[in-house]
Amino acid sequence: MVSVATAIQEGAMAYLARQLRTMMPFIALVTIGLYLLYRPIYADRPTLAVGVAVAFLLGCFASYGAGYVGMTSAVHGNVRVANAARRSYREALQIAFQAGTVSGMFTVGLGLLGATIMFMYFRENAMRVLVGFGFGGSLVAAFMRVGGGIYTKAADVGADLVGKVEVGIPEDDPRNAAVIADNVGDNVGDCAGMAADVFESYEVTLVAAIILGAATLLDPEFVARYGGPAAAGAFALKLIIYPLLVRAIGVFASLFGTWVVRGRDEEIGDPMRPINVGFWTAAVLSAAGFGLVNAFYLKDPTTGAPDFRFFFATLTGILLALVIGWLTEIYTHPDRGPVREIAYSAKTGPATLLLTGLGAGLESTVWAILAIAVTLAASFTIFSGSVALGAYGIALAGLGLLTTTGYILAEDTFGPIVDNANGIFEMSGVERGESLAGRIVARLDQVGNTTKALTKGFAIATAVVAAIALFRSFIGEARLFVRVEELVGSSAQQAGEMLSRVGIQVNLPLVFIGMLIGGAVPFLVSAFLIRAVGRSAFLVVEEVRRQFREIPGLLAGTARPDYSRCVDIVTKAAQRELMGPGIIAISVPILVGFGLGAAPLGAYLAGAILTAQLLAVFMANTGGAWDNAKKKIEDGYLGGKGSDAHKAGVIGDTVGDPLKDTAGPALNPIIKVMNLVAILIAPVVIAPISSGVRLSVVVITLALVTVAVVLSRRTTIHEEELTPPTDPAKPPRPPALVR
Amino acid sequence: MVSVATAIQEGAMAYLARQLRTMMPFIALVTIGLYLLYRPIYADRPTLAVGVAVAFLLGCFASYGAGYVGMTSAVHGNVRVANAARRSYREALQIAFQAGTVSGMFTVGLGLLGATIMFMYFRENAMRVLVGFGFGGSLVAAFMRVGGGIYTKAADVGADLVGKVEVGIPEDDPRNAAVIADNVGDNVGDCAGMAADVFESYEVTLVAAIILGAATLLDPEFVARYGGPAAAGAFALKLIIYPLLVRAIGVFASLFGTWVVRGRDEEIGDPMRPINVGFWTAAVLSAAGFGLVNAFYLKDPTTGAPDFRFFFATLTGILLALVIGWLTEIYTHPDRGPVREIAYSAKTGPATLLLTGLGAGLESTVWAILAIAVTLAASFTIFSGSVALGAYGIALAGLGLLTTTGYILAEDTFGPIVDNANGIFEMSGVERGESLAGRIVARLDQVGNTTKALTKGFAIATAVVAAIALFRSFIGEARLFVRVEELVGSSAQQAGEMLSRVGIQVNLPLVFIGMLIGGAVPFLVSAFLIRAVGRSAFLVVEEVRRQFREIPGLLAGTARPDYSRCVDIVTKAAQRELMGPGIIAISVPILVGFGLGAAPLGAYLAGAILTAQLLAVFMANTGGAWDNAKKKIEDGYLGGKGSDAHKAGVIGDTVGDPLKDTAGPALNPIIKVMNLVAILIAPVVIAPISSGVRLSVVVITLALVTVAVVLSRRTTIHEEELTPPTDPAKPPRPPALVR
Repeated sequence: MVSVATAIQEGAMAYLARQLRTMMPFIALVTIGLYLLYRPIYADRPTLAVGVAVAFLLGCFASYGAGYVGMTSAVHGNVRVANAARRSYREALQIAFQAGTVSGMFTVGLGLLGATIMFMYFRENAMRVLVGFGFGGSLVAAFMRVGGGIYTKAADVGADLVGKVEVGIPEDDPRNAAVIADNVGDNVGDCAGMAADVFESYEVTLVAAIILGAATLLDPEFVARYGGPAAAGAFALKLIIYPLLVRAIGVFASLFGTWVVRGRDEEIGDPMRPINVGFWTAAVLSAAGFGLVNAFYLKDPTTGAPDFRFFFATLTGILLALVIGWLTEIYTHPDRGPVREIAYSAKTGPATLLLTGLGAGLESTVWAILAIAVTLAASFTIFSGSVALGAYGIALAGLGLLTTTGYILAEDTFGPIVDNANGIFEMSGVERGESLAGRIVARLDQVGNTTKALTKGFAIATAVVAAIALFRSFIGEARLFVRVEELVGSSAQQAGEMLSRVGIQVNLPLVFIGMLIGGAVPFLVSAFLIRAVGRSAFLVVEEVRRQFREIPGLLAGTARPDYSRCVDIVTKAAQRELMGPGIIAISVPILVGFGLGAAPLGAYLAGAILTAQLLAVFMANTGGAWDNAKKKIEDGYLGGKGSDAHKAGVIGDTVGDPLKDTAGPALNPIIKVMNLVAILIAPVVIAPISSGVRLSVVVITLALVTVAVVLSRRTTIHEEELTPPTDPAKPPRPPALVR
Repeated sequence: MVSVATAIQEGAMAYLARQLRTMMPFIALVTIGLYLLYRPIYADRPTLAVGVAVAFLLGCFASYGAGYVGMTSAVHGNVRVANAARRSYREALQIAFQAGTVSGMFTVGLGLLGATIMFMYFRENAMRVLVGFGFGGSLVAAFMRVGGGIYTKAADVGADLVGKVEVGIPEDDPRNAAVIADNVGDNVGDCAGMAADVFESYEVTLVAAIILGAATLLDPEFVARYGGPAAAGAFALKLIIYPLLVRAIGVFASLFGTWVVRGRDEEIGDPMRPINVGFWTAAVLSAAGFGLVNAFYLKDPTTGAPDFRFFFATLTGILLALVIGWLTEIYTHPDRGPVREIAYSAKTGPATLLLTGLGAGLESTVWAILAIAVTLAASFTIFSGSVALGAYGIALAGLGLLTTTGYILAEDTFGPIVDNANGIFEMSGVERGESLAGRIVARLDQVGNTTKALTKGFAIATAVVAAIALFRSFIGEARLFVRVEELVGSSAQQAGEMLSRVGIQVNLPLVFIGMLIGGAVPFLVSAFLIRAVGRSAFLVVEEVRRQFREIPGLLAGTARPDYSRCVDIVTKAAQRELMGPGIIAISVPILVGFGLGAAPLGAYLAGAILTAQLLAVFMANTGGAWDNAKKKIEDGYLGGKGSDAHKAGVIGDTVGDPLKDTAGPALNPIIKVMNLVAILIAPVVIAPISSGVRLSVVVITLALVTVAVVLSRRTTIHEEELTPPTDPAKPPRPPALVR
């Protein structure tokens, strides 16, 4: 077991090291770029320009650190879980969950620490600097999410295509040269990217709430309502402190929740039960805590009675987390309607199974986005009458959603740990035949799939909520508002001009065009990632085939394959393939901003958030449902393993893999990166720069995007393989239909 | 041949009759509803309320008429083509294309006639009344498109699942009870809906251009630029006439184009060549005509020199039609990169074939939406400096896009005619073995697939362009603008309130929520339509199985199946299944309008247009590419028919069928219906009605939507079929993960 685990650890560390090396020049370039960009803009406040650049750097390292700790705790926890399973179920479960908790709590702690430092040092400019921090975090998260997603599926699909399909050996068979890469991939895909990604949402929602709490004082209605400047000022201070209290309560509640997760010794229970109990404990404790704080701390200064609207707004966020978990379960759990229907349709072959899955997935994303819409609407209209408090209410919903982040990240890391524990146990051959320990790790593995699916849905929702918070900053930075005082005294012509630059009016042609482009980007990125997995898997296939061909005795089991070559191939491939989507995420917002203007750029973000949310949940749930439909058939339904229905299930699972583990999850950090790029360039977009400069920016970014598209569209298929043999008996096809 | 054709004709007429019966109560209800809705609003102009209701009724019948003529010419043309093929290739091709031309020209003529009458009678209120006309047209188009789409694929999939898969008889085998329904379906799906759908876009773009031409006079800058009120007025009149001239030129150019389509007698040529020559002829002739009109008619009144910007703006539309055709070809032609790559990936099984197809489809929709975005941007910025002319420019691009509508509809109807001709020829058994006539109809059939794919991409683009034109009307009807004169004299508070209702500002929370809901609807409708096909196909499967079981001698060929039962089953199923999506298209905009307000309703439309365009092209091209990848393999590539690669290809084709022929095409008329509903209710949404009325509208529409969702989510699978046998050796699965 130690030798297998060591190979996984080495592979994981090699990946992390290479990832860092790839990102380094990028990070250095962007740091310098940010400083140069902001020096002229903040000419009067030089610390701010340095602050943004340094914050970016810190964000990069914090995000990388969160990923690093997640990976490390996972690749060291897995083997201990495998070994503990030989002693008892209780111990195996607890070690697995505790290792996950390390990663979850580290991320949350880092997030709170970063936000606090920024806030203490920069105060009212904190959001501005934090955008730099968030950009660093999101950029690294995007790299790790995208790279990890390509890595894991290239290894998985590559290993399966040769192993299962061509040679006919089982999964996790040590004779398959790609098997270690596959196990490393589980960690790379699920720990590194996820922690880095959620970390950033955690950060942004906190600071947005603080800033919107302070902004209430700018609203004359708010000041009048709460008894004049002095009393209202004291109340606003409480609104600033409240988000911090909410976060603190969330941390302790999550910690308490993880402490509750424990199994009993006498039996192999359902591991999902204690994990769910832990989550409910965390959620209920948090809600109770918020209620208490609201009751004793947030009293209406004019009446002295507690104003529970703040509690309810925060509660909508907690409810959203529960609803999203519930929806994920309905659409992906093997015993629920959709997966049962998908499995049943395998009776008439793979095509009907795939269609039923597509239908269910398309439907599921609608309910998820509606849940978000209802939460936003509720937390906003709860404060009906006050726009300032309404905005604060939306921020509170975001806080509520991310309350249990620590716990949810623990659940997420739990997934790859138990997945690997099962793999290590199998590969090491430490116990022969059916054993209790074998059943324990298999059971944990099964549940790990569910925890991973649940956290995926959560991560997507947090990305959207964080993006909405960032959206508000964008309006400020791009100055897409008009001061009423200016307006009233102005001439008709000035007023007309001002009206056209109020907000992001999608009814204006160029703004509408911005939205069309933004909505298209998630489709483009998804297409490129699906292709990237295909290309990288192809390289793995070739290498595994080569080893079976060239290493004598490998198939017989007398020789060992060269695992490290496969690890190396996917590591390099993942780094190469993430360049295309990375360039697109950074360049297209710049292109739209300088080519069309600030308001179209805002609409671009809105369009991208919309389609990214819809596509991400669609892909995650469709893939998860196909996966579990296959498992349902493997459990003996419709003939079980080896039946035609099972073959159909395997096809569905393979199609779903890159959707749910590569393209879907990559969309979260990518929309956040685009939002942050937009906010960072907004002051320059609206600055009076010459049209020459503007044009050169457009030309450069257009060239970059073209390079990314060319890179991402290349094929590994040779021309001669594509030419069908000509059959003299048949007339050739009609020539190309060029118009 | 006559007996087969008669069966198809009867099936088609039965469908049309039933469709009309289903729609009748709906149409009557909406007509009365519209009159009651508008009577109080247009209290001072009672003819307008009657006008809208009557226009709605006329729109319904015009749209139905376009569909009826298309179907009739198709189901009478098909048998004549099959017979003509026995004489010569030239004659078969010409009859097929001429029958298509009847349908195309009838639709265009009807469109021009309707618009002209509306315009002559209602003048400046024409757009208002035309919204009613358009609503009738779109509603009927949506019904016919959705019903037809479900019909065609339920029959197709149902026939194949029993025929090809279970019994092992070829396609179009007369022993299959669903074979006539399948042939009727080709007409129902491709003629009836398409003509009705494009008809409405043709109408809206013309009237929008006329109105925007007249609106230039409201712009003081325009008046000043063109030499004062008198001279500018004369010039604006020319801008009103120009769209009519453009349409006239388009009709004659299209007619000339269809006249050019002719084959040579000595050989079976590539039918696509004369069809393409015809299209290019129509496009080039139109462009030349526009240039001449621009040169001699639209002279700048201040300089006397022709202003070619109008020509260029119109040209962008023609170019868009060409680019969309070109993109469709790149992504779906069997000899182009994407389809070759998809076919090649069948080498490693159906999963890789499906993934490559998904990647290509996701990518293709990005370029299509970018083409639309670039066209809009170009036609708008060509008139840089004048907002009024910019809006007119966009309308001209829409006119240009629809210039060759007559020709394109002819191409579209050509598809089912030659498809049916091939079916009739095969089923009638009129010539045995390989014959020249057989090769002629097969070749025509193959090309018919391409012409259908090309026109599908075109129809989607026209829907988006028409929706953008309607969007502008919506802003006017919902009064989402502020008059500068009002603003300048107002108090700070009034001005602040006014600013919040300028345009559709997606940065405002409720507006953003509207966009999220709008973006979700096309996903919901697609999901429901995919399910609907599954459910309806299931009924066909049961009936075909029953006939094979109960009719003695059917499989041996000594008895004939009861075709009419299958026709009846799909006819009823299609009518039943279209209710869900129909209710959603009408109710959700009302729900959003009354629940959230006018601006969120506008954002709803924007979100729906965005995702509908992206999804529709994605589904059309993915399905088309899978279809042609299968055909490529059938041509002998990777082992040809019967190989594993071919089986993978068949799976891809079956998955793609409901995407490209049901869900994708249904999205065009549905977004148009939603746009038109929004415009129609806008005056009521902003009227000072009581919150009680508002709430009851919300409750009623919410109830309707719930009914639609419940209807569309029901399953045909029985509970006991879903319960897997319990295996005592294995522990039961962990229980449900409810949180």
